[in-house]
Amino acid sequence: MEWLETSTENCPVQLTLGVVGEKWTLLILRDACNGVRRFDEFRRHIGLSDAVLSDRLRKLTDAGILRTVPYQEPGSRARHEYRVTRKGWDLWPVLVALKQWGETHMGDGDGPVLDLRHEECGTPVRVVVECERGHTALSPEQVTAKPGPGARPHAA
Amino acid sequence: MEWLETSTENCPVQLTLGVVGEKWTLLILRDACNGVRRFDEFRRHIGLSDAVLSDRLRKLTDAGILRTVPYQEPGSRARHEYRVTRKGWDLWPVLVALKQWGETHMGDGDGPVLDLRHEECGTPVRVVVECERGHTALSPEQVTAKPGPGARPHAA
Repeated sequence: MEWLETSTENCPVQLTLGVVGEKWTLLILRDACNGVRRFDEFRRHIGLSDAVLSDRLRKLTDAGILRTVPYQEPGSRARHEYRVTRKGWDLWPVLVALKQWGETHMGDGDGPVLDLRHEECGTPVRVVVECERGHTALSPEQVTAKPGPGARPHAA
Repeated sequence: MEWLETSTENCPVQLTLGVVGEKWTLLILRDACNGVRRFDEFRRHIGLSDAVLSDRLRKLTDAGILRTVPYQEPGSRARHEYRVTRKGWDLWPVLVALKQWGETHMGDGDGPVLDLRHEECGTPVRVVVECERGHTALSPEQVTAKPGPGARPHAA
């Protein structure tokens, strides 16, 4: 089976984009990964409408990428804030990869907006593709792509 | 400067999503990375309308992620097909990271739809975050994130 004869219905890229394949969703997750927790903070920082923010937060929570934690400020009603789940943190490489491309191809030369470093040794981090034997920073030319056991025939 | 006080305007994640932060765009790129080149092939395989496909192909070409190459079938008018540029291939880790999350969290247990392997040693590949000293498969907890030299104050 070749790629064009492979169904896209269970393609994991497509399934993932069905959940986070929308700009605001990933920007909310970016902020949540950077410690933003509260509705008003997301709204002010990202600059999106209440309606869109509510909708995307609900989608992220329904998908198990964010979870809600109740809090109450003195004199205010009970509210909830948002935390990134383990499942949500599993999307962190996607964010780092998007950041890397933007810095490479759309940067203004001022250096990183967000400086990510390995805490232990203090050096900058990057996303790479590596194999099980530890060969790292593989290029697409070094990687073969063939329909695997999960591939199904395209309906067409 | 803390994250909430940092402008999102020049955030590289946001700039990148301004180009590819839409589901169809990334699905077209996925197909192009798998060797799909022609308009009708994209349309049939992905199952999207002519109008959306034309628009997204134009955006990807304008952004320098795809480039057009003319071809002509006997008896047909000249057309062009699409190839992934170097800049486009730089988004490959984003696609592999999206694939990985989908396989981990939305897979049906049948195994990978697309089997990516290091050609040289034959083992499966994955996306990881590594540091300059080669410490690999870093978790978010092992990585510090601080506004860097490119950070600008948020206009609020």
